[in-house]
Amino acid sequence: MGLKEKINEANQEAVNRIINSKVVWVDVKPAIEVIPGMEKNLILHAGPPITFKRMCRPQKNAMLGAAMYEGLVTSEEEMDELCASGKIRLEPCHDHSTVGSMCGVTSASINVLVVKNETYGNFSYCTVYESYERDRLLVGSISDAVFENLRWLNSNVAEGLRAGLKEFGGAMDIKNIIARALAMGDELHSRNFAATALFGLEFMPFLLRSSVDNQIKQDIADFLQRTEQFFLHHVMAAGKAMTDAAKNIEYSTIVTAIARNGVGVGIKVSALGEQWFTGPAGEIMGLFFGTEGPEDAQGDLGDSAIAETAGLGGMAHAASPSLALIKTGNANDAIAITEEMRKICFSQNPNFGIPIQNGAGAPVGIDIRKVMDTGITPIIDTGIAHKQGGIIGVGNARAPKEAFKKALEAFGEMVKSS
Amino acid sequence: MGLKEKINEANQEAVNRIINSKVVWVDVKPAIEVIPGMEKNLILHAGPPITFKRMCRPQKNAMLGAAMYEGLVTSEEEMDELCASGKIRLEPCHDHSTVGSMCGVTSASINVLVVKNETYGNFSYCTVYESYERDRLLVGSISDAVFENLRWLNSNVAEGLRAGLKEFGGAMDIKNIIARALAMGDELHSRNFAATALFGLEFMPFLLRSSVDNQIKQDIADFLQRTEQFFLHHVMAAGKAMTDAAKNIEYSTIVTAIARNGVGVGIKVSALGEQWFTGPAGEIMGLFFGTEGPEDAQGDLGDSAIAETAGLGGMAHAASPSLALIKTGNANDAIAITEEMRKICFSQNPNFGIPIQNGAGAPVGIDIRKVMDTGITPIIDTGIAHKQGGIIGVGNARAPKEAFKKALEAFGEMVKSS
Repeated sequence: MGLKEKINEANQEAVNRIINSKVVWVDVKPAIEVIPGMEKNLILHAGPPITFKRMCRPQKNAMLGAAMYEGLVTSEEEMDELCASGKIRLEPCHDHSTVGSMCGVTSASINVLVVKNETYGNFSYCTVYESYERDRLLVGSISDAVFENLRWLNSNVAEGLRAGLKEFGGAMDIKNIIARALAMGDELHSRNFAATALFGLEFMPFLLRSSVDNQIKQDIADFLQRTEQFFLHHVMAAGKAMTDAAKNIEYSTIVTAIARNGVGVGIKVSALGEQWFTGPAGEIMGLFFGTEGPEDAQGDLGDSAIAETAGLGGMAHAASPSLALIKTGNANDAIAITEEMRKICFSQNPNFGIPIQNGAGAPVGIDIRKVMDTGITPIIDTGIAHKQGGIIGVGNARAPKEAFKKALEAFGEMVKSS
Repeated sequence: MGLKEKINEANQEAVNRIINSKVVWVDVKPAIEVIPGMEKNLILHAGPPITFKRMCRPQKNAMLGAAMYEGLVTSEEEMDELCASGKIRLEPCHDHSTVGSMCGVTSASINVLVVKNETYGNFSYCTVYESYERDRLLVGSISDAVFENLRWLNSNVAEGLRAGLKEFGGAMDIKNIIARALAMGDELHSRNFAATALFGLEFMPFLLRSSVDNQIKQDIADFLQRTEQFFLHHVMAAGKAMTDAAKNIEYSTIVTAIARNGVGVGIKVSALGEQWFTGPAGEIMGLFFGTEGPEDAQGDLGDSAIAETAGLGGMAHAASPSLALIKTGNANDAIAITEEMRKICFSQNPNFGIPIQNGAGAPVGIDIRKVMDTGITPIIDTGIAHKQGGIIGVGNARAPKEAFKKALEAFGEMVKSS
């Protein structure tokens, strides 16, 4: 078998694993109890590895806020010292079976969604969606209100989600909700409105059967009503569980992670295991909610590009003409983006049909060869963080070509030496 | 001012009234307490006037079932007699500010949604959505299970809806939910999945705050989870409240009702008040859920064409590529239908934007002149009833040209004699 056939076979196996993964939400637990390698003095962040000193301001704030919330430090000076001395460690979420939205802040006591890949046995984690407010720890905001909300998430919300899920039977199929939401205008990254509403429909009957306090039931109902993007973190954990199953396939050139820390963007590739290949963070083109503009925007940030890696978000953009309309004023851009993404993906996912494309599956399996051949880089639907923290808009970013170039070079070296 | 200008001005006024109507859901009450002219021995039906003898089998069954449920009769023979003697009266829903789905059965004790047009002060009514089951009274099924379900609707469901709505503040904006659902793949006639889910999101926090039994809260949560079309009856009542406001405008050729009784289809026209103009019931082309086919299908049935009359359903079909895909296998039919409907509508509704058409408003205000000029009749998205009762499919029907022809002739006569 020639090299090309070996690669195609390996890539087919990688996308099959992504497509065949049955991913179910199975628990809500403090990070320290479930995330592999989690420790009290470890804080996880979005994107490829980066030191505290080199982090962008929002991510620095997020790490500092988490360390304060965990009682590890009381000031940025102290944080600087403890990070430099290694007494506080910062590591990528991605290297701990975890994904984190925007700054990706995940610390020991924070509750995370636990998602199981029933087909391949692996688990993944993502914090419970934090808030509908502009100011959240995950976009680098530190305030009493932010901490109070985190405590409420860790108590009432976590308890309610846990109790309802238990009544539900302990395992909720996430891909079923994703598939239905794709027929309802979501692309499952920047728009999860239908998915959140469907989650509410499915979840509430069981929450109501549970024995938690009525106040907690009300809190969950209120939170879902206000928080249109609530289901994003379920999607992210599901995406991580699906793409982790496609890792470490010899000869596969399929991307298994795209992650951004605001300074750089890192990707992983199946055959290249846990190695990061990086390039500079891209600028985000899109809509600013208020008076801010591009000059206020932090570079592309967050692990939520796991959506695109798993064949949603930008890949499935055609499902969401509304989102394109908001971002560019042209609904047809939604279809154009998905069509462009088909050129760099190895296959399409029959589970994730796009109605306006006659039910054709969304493209899945970004192939680094195709990215380099075509010069087309993946489009990532994403939120826009303010340089000083807070969320100020929504738009499209491109993953940087440098990362794919480095990965393809490393792949070439590996093949030569094998 | 010439006749043409008079008509255009009148039509502009009629569509303005439809567009400007703010319609809110304000109560759930037994029909006898709220519907104008309702009496114990009166049963309302879908479509233009028809006698019991001439009704199609499903509608006959529905009337009989309602009379049994109300304790008026125990057999069809008795029903025949009492209808012939006038001791039981059957009248169109439409002539009592009401609309009824499929057979349209509405009797004294059955609870109805009360919708208020806050802009113009009129009220409208539609029964609470009956069930997700194939067998329902409203499609002509009579059984113990159907009656038991009606009693449950009249007790637990009505009480829960009433209590939650009261906590909500006593008035829920229906057009807000419609507008959001149009961006989520609903056309609000044959597909109300997003609207139902959004209703659940908005309603549950208030139901939970109410003091009704936990069992009732669970019942409502369960009912919404199972019943994807639940919100259709809110849409129908809203459509009736909007189009009733456009009635009786001198010189207006805008259609204010399209209603079907399975035998005939009747329309009303603004300038022609409460007169019915009828034609034969059309065949429905579409998808059969099971083993049945066109030979089993009852002719076009129900007042739900109020959706099209108010600028939703077939008019807004472009919002729902999924529905077209189910019916014909071609998602683009959704757009083609809306484009065709633009040719017979006077205007478009800026409140009801269609994302894939760059937010262009759905066509609104079917103009009988345009129907006769173009030969294009309104497309109605509709359910398909079995000739013996039960719901067996979903498809497209056309309102018959005869009705529009008669209406235009009557309009001509009226103009001549004025």
